[in-house]
Amino acid sequence: MIRIGIMGYGNLGRGVEYAIAQNPDMQLAAVFTRRDPASIRTATAGVPVLAADSAADMKDEIDVMILCGGSATDLPEQTPALARWFNVVDSFDTHARIPEHFAAVDAAAKEASTLGLISVGWDPGLFSLNRVYASAVLPQGESYTFWGKGVSQGHSDAIRRIEGVQDARQYTVPVESALEAVRSGSQPVLTTRQKHTRECFVVAKPGADTARIEKEIKEMPNYFADYDTTVHFVSQEELLRDHAGLPHGGMVIRTGKTGPEGANTHVIEYRLKLDSNPEFTSSVLVAYARALWRMYQAGERGCKTVLDVPPALLSPLSGEELRASML
Amino acid sequence: MIRIGIMGYGNLGRGVEYAIAQNPDMQLAAVFTRRDPASIRTATAGVPVLAADSAADMKDEIDVMILCGGSATDLPEQTPALARWFNVVDSFDTHARIPEHFAAVDAAAKEASTLGLISVGWDPGLFSLNRVYASAVLPQGESYTFWGKGVSQGHSDAIRRIEGVQDARQYTVPVESALEAVRSGSQPVLTTRQKHTRECFVVAKPGADTARIEKEIKEMPNYFADYDTTVHFVSQEELLRDHAGLPHGGMVIRTGKTGPEGANTHVIEYRLKLDSNPEFTSSVLVAYARALWRMYQAGERGCKTVLDVPPALLSPLSGEELRASML
Repeated sequence: MIRIGIMGYGNLGRGVEYAIAQNPDMQLAAVFTRRDPASIRTATAGVPVLAADSAADMKDEIDVMILCGGSATDLPEQTPALARWFNVVDSFDTHARIPEHFAAVDAAAKEASTLGLISVGWDPGLFSLNRVYASAVLPQGESYTFWGKGVSQGHSDAIRRIEGVQDARQYTVPVESALEAVRSGSQPVLTTRQKHTRECFVVAKPGADTARIEKEIKEMPNYFADYDTTVHFVSQEELLRDHAGLPHGGMVIRTGKTGPEGANTHVIEYRLKLDSNPEFTSSVLVAYARALWRMYQAGERGCKTVLDVPPALLSPLSGEELRASML
Repeated sequence: MIRIGIMGYGNLGRGVEYAIAQNPDMQLAAVFTRRDPASIRTATAGVPVLAADSAADMKDEIDVMILCGGSATDLPEQTPALARWFNVVDSFDTHARIPEHFAAVDAAAKEASTLGLISVGWDPGLFSLNRVYASAVLPQGESYTFWGKGVSQGHSDAIRRIEGVQDARQYTVPVESALEAVRSGSQPVLTTRQKHTRECFVVAKPGADTARIEKEIKEMPNYFADYDTTVHFVSQEELLRDHAGLPHGGMVIRTGKTGPEGANTHVIEYRLKLDSNPEFTSSVLVAYARALWRMYQAGERGCKTVLDVPPALLSPLSGEELRASML
């Protein structure tokens, strides 16, 4: 049995707890929280809930610690700190800062002789794998990543910070005509605006100026200004009824040419359609926790990413079973 | 520069030659053939074409030998035999016989201290990877593989063996309603007949009994009897004009459930649409030849499959470059 610790018990932590229950070779050893542990009710009976700052006391009871905090402030600090005591897996997803996060975790893990695995999930994660496989197989080609249709929590938060907004939910939607153009193999050059639209469902506070709110959303730099954005004002009831879930997904598509004068075109497409973004991300984290533990037992130390992990290590099946049933 | 040898110069061998030209870190060292070497004209100028049975003489000039023969009779003999002298990559695709082929190549490679990589291509190969990744991430789910629309060379050959048939081309076609049912997440149980249809384009010899030919095709056990099969009689000119290519492709789809009582459904789909089956398979072989050479240099010996290969090793980019650009 691989003994798993969960650091942080929000949507992602709860998802990890459910995913562990689907994997018979794993057990949940403890949940750690910065909130009052007495206030937490886990779904699994009898699991200790402990204070985050006492985690080191449990170092001999946990094989892999899965970090379920956010990428903005939690993980840059927590992952290297916890690598002093544990093998760690996180879902750090600020793409631009991955190299520095990797360096910090690598240094901490090498010093403590532990193993870390960062940026595990679907993007970064499974989408990254597909970008690497597809570009290696079709070197003369172009790769495209589309996201959605799905809820962007960062964009929803940005709308909620506007004066007069009570609640909001933002969907990122890939543009169908852009997808068609990419799948045709024509390797189009696409602007940000051509690839995705943004659709916002907003609850205004009583008496708020909805025209001003809509204008502020549509002109918000980085988040919305470069996109065709639609704003729908709805009641709080409608928002809770129709937009409570956290669906997401997307596609990684690469098209490339082979043969004499590139006469033949090939399309590789990887597509995810997820009812729950955090639960799916959690499921990826748990599969990679198994791989990490095997790599640790084989003597690997320092920091790795999904690109370094042989696929067979994710599966509970042996190499022999995999060759007979899945190859 | 990684020095590649090509054993066998048919569609696959020529595809490998074109793929090497797309990878600046590789060079084609020699082509080996069982035909008269003087009868072969390679696309690359100045490449030695040598007799297959003289391959061992070139063992110091070749880092990886890519075997481009067939799975029925060539590879079971050639891959273990050549592993005595070379690191070898093949595309052995008889799924049921993979375990015994693996054992034979593993024994030969371990004895000679070389490294072998078998069953590289898209199925087995990239499709296998996707079956393993998806089932590890969604343990409570079902996986489905669909092939096509594409030309099955084995089925085309089977038709050509019927008396009165001059030429033929057979397409395997996935059934759209089955795809829809799978993508819905309902995890349907599908029969062979429900998943694929078979479409045949047949040139009859002058005076042949086309009704008898059609009946023989549709009733052929294993190949056609379990499928809804359509037979079109066409002229040789039409066959050459409209059905000269070797397109193929397909999808690996896994759907699974997560969360409390499996409330959330997720769909993972990997799809290939290939203008040329042999050229795409060749491109996969060449990317894995790079990985094999790196694994050999790192000290690995014996037989491996794609499931054992860390994805980063396929790419010409360094780990640092991959983390910065593709993760």
